[in-house]
Amino acid sequence: MSKAYRVRTEIEAILDRLGEGDQVPPERELAARFEVARETVRQALRELLVQGRIRRQGRGTVVSRPKMVQPLSLRSYTEGAIGLGRRPGRLLVGWDDIPADPETAAALDISTGSTVMHLERVLLADDEKVGLESTYLTPARFGALRTTYDPTTSLYAAIRTSGVVFGSAVERIETVLASPREAALLECTTALPMILLHRRTIDAEGVPIERVRALYRGDRMAFETQLRE
Amino acid sequence: MSKAYRVRTEIEAILDRLGEGDQVPPERELAARFEVARETVRQALRELLVQGRIRRQGRGTVVSRPKMVQPLSLRSYTEGAIGLGRRPGRLLVGWDDIPADPETAAALDISTGSTVMHLERVLLADDEKVGLESTYLTPARFGALRTTYDPTTSLYAAIRTSGVVFGSAVERIETVLASPREAALLECTTALPMILLHRRTIDAEGVPIERVRALYRGDRMAFETQLRE
Repeated sequence: MSKAYRVRTEIEAILDRLGEGDQVPPERELAARFEVARETVRQALRELLVQGRIRRQGRGTVVSRPKMVQPLSLRSYTEGAIGLGRRPGRLLVGWDDIPADPETAAALDISTGSTVMHLERVLLADDEKVGLESTYLTPARFGALRTTYDPTTSLYAAIRTSGVVFGSAVERIETVLASPREAALLECTTALPMILLHRRTIDAEGVPIERVRALYRGDRMAFETQLRE
Repeated sequence: MSKAYRVRTEIEAILDRLGEGDQVPPERELAARFEVARETVRQALRELLVQGRIRRQGRGTVVSRPKMVQPLSLRSYTEGAIGLGRRPGRLLVGWDDIPADPETAAALDISTGSTVMHLERVLLADDEKVGLESTYLTPARFGALRTTYDPTTSLYAAIRTSGVVFGSAVERIETVLASPREAALLECTTALPMILLHRRTIDAEGVPIERVRALYRGDRMAFETQLRE
């Protein structure tokens, strides 16, 4: 067993005995206790921070609550969060008409440069900023939402109310670093790995509903799916 | 549009005109061309590096080949890679009996500390190191593989040949940073975000087959899934 692995395992054992919000012992103390270099402890703490096992609070480090594990599904973020016993919320960043870039145009079966509605929101779980979601819709199909829809509520509920029936979606999952703008909106650093989801949703007839680009804090969210033969 | 976003978009336009393996213009030249600080260019290049759009080669930076997009499925890595037109390979890191930790024991319905077979391999695509996979199996069920199975071939094929029928799996998807050991095995830095998959596979009767912990380079791999109502 490598020294790094042993130190990491020993720190995890300490965290297991602490509760959410409890102070993590300082680096110096851990290094002395395990008789290793502070750099070894620092690396272990950095891994645990990215994992979301611990978080910075003020000048110290405390034990985090567990990650949210959302099922990959055609449900909205709102429904997923409620299913996990978390209180979902959204902060509106912008709701504007913009010219479609080539990817968005291809996803929505329109021509590049034609107008799309862009809804950008920060996703909250119990007031914690966990994600940043951009949804692209065509005015031809969803222009009425501009006046009828409150962007701090569930978009999927509004789309269903408008009579559209969800069919299926293709979702692509990647990991990226946040840009400085994204990191600022999510109050994290640009060194924190994020989960990036791209989704294209179509209705029961195969007509595009939306394109979504969602960025989730890698230390706060995980996804789960069931695979079958 | 923010300056950072504009610079990033302009660099992407340059990359679109280049071919795989072509040199990316140096930071200084890009900063002068876009009339921005070198730090702005550096940040954009760092994002493109993590995305896998470009990669370091020697002292320079070149355009990468696109990421592998694997379907999330109950197929093996081998079958997935072949499906994408890539040549799969595996480097054996270790194949040892170890005591089961609590997570592995729970996944395999055995008691903590009892012996499990641990198969650790680096996954290759056309000789590129894209992932590191640990598979845990019980000797009670799969002990015979110790003598019959060549660990550089597909494990799923060997399991099927032994008469076991795959039923379903639950897969959890997260993002993490590689530990120093993992980064060394994958020849990347510990600052590169990775996709971490945990899988528990059961047979058609619900009896555990394997627990898998797979780490994929975030700049080389993405995953895709189809969602239905």
